[in-house]
Amino acid sequence: MLKKGNRVIGFITGNRFKFLEAEIVAKEYGFTLTLLSYPKLEIQATDLRKIVLFSLAELIGRLDNRPIVVEDSGLFIEALKGFPGPYSSYVYKSIGCKGILKLLKDVPPPRRATFRSCVAYHDGSGNILITEGICEGFISTDERGKGGFGFDPIFMPKGSGGRTFAEMSPNEKNRYSHRAKAFRELFSRLM
Amino acid sequence: MLKKGNRVIGFITGNRFKFLEAEIVAKEYGFTLTLLSYPKLEIQATDLRKIVLFSLAELIGRLDNRPIVVEDSGLFIEALKGFPGPYSSYVYKSIGCKGILKLLKDVPPPRRATFRSCVAYHDGSGNILITEGICEGFISTDERGKGGFGFDPIFMPKGSGGRTFAEMSPNEKNRYSHRAKAFRELFSRLM
Repeated sequence: MLKKGNRVIGFITGNRFKFLEAEIVAKEYGFTLTLLSYPKLEIQATDLRKIVLFSLAELIGRLDNRPIVVEDSGLFIEALKGFPGPYSSYVYKSIGCKGILKLLKDVPPPRRATFRSCVAYHDGSGNILITEGICEGFISTDERGKGGFGFDPIFMPKGSGGRTFAEMSPNEKNRYSHRAKAFRELFSRLM
Repeated sequence: MLKKGNRVIGFITGNRFKFLEAEIVAKEYGFTLTLLSYPKLEIQATDLRKIVLFSLAELIGRLDNRPIVVEDSGLFIEALKGFPGPYSSYVYKSIGCKGILKLLKDVPPPRRATFRSCVAYHDGSGNILITEGICEGFISTDERGKGGFGFDPIFMPKGSGGRTFAEMSPNEKNRYSHRAKAFRELFSRLM
């Protein structure tokens, strides 16, 4: 059985923005996340579940009996056949938001896109839970806002009235976001 | 929550002996195992949990919503500092039982050893369970018996009165064996 007594969970990530977003959700459910900055294996694959499970498998020997969680996410743009998908972080660092807007220059709105997040949790006793969160939306025609990270300035979630993730506070972003959904699913199943 | 309705589980292994042993345990608990012979990734690591979890992570994208299980095991000989451990299958194929007996030639009985098995199960819905089984025993001074596989002819489990695994029927071996214990733990948690 999945251990349910754990209230303090280590989140292995090098991204402080991700940590802050997940921390807000954790508090909603009465959990405490601690930021662990261990190096993390990230394989190349198109299935986010596979990526997070490999990361977790690689950590499991080192962090042993401690409850830990890892997360991976990606932006899947319909007109680009899912690009950049699981390579979002690398693509962001190389061509950035401007590169995506260039690639979509001749694609008229609405430019449908989906943010996906996948979370893998190990309770420290051999039970692993994988949860997923999806946020549907559109790619904007220009960069807007200073909040969030990565492709947030060009992603408008459905129902936000055209506002991008980067124009929102972390709390507001969490109302829509793929990552908040995946973590909510996790914490609600750990209650 | 771990899905409990699954009664048919795919066991990915290239070893028919392992399959037969696990199948006997499955039947005890009312489960049906099917033998799946997909190629399986086996990383080099000393932690069996890590090895099985990598195997499972690699399969998860391909076998998707199907309940599957993988297993890995090893013989850890005290006087050889745990050798051959997780490399048992390779060591068996290269130096065999005779090689182990040679390495232990000057070590007087009792030559303590432990067989360990680690099982990783995915219910097809993001829940993974890792179970382990241990069998303590001794390395014999000669090869005895024709049953089982691998190092079974030189391993005498504690309480067997000096009989090796290879001198037992699969049913009798299962009374002692690490693998049967790991699978029993799995099936009892899936009930």
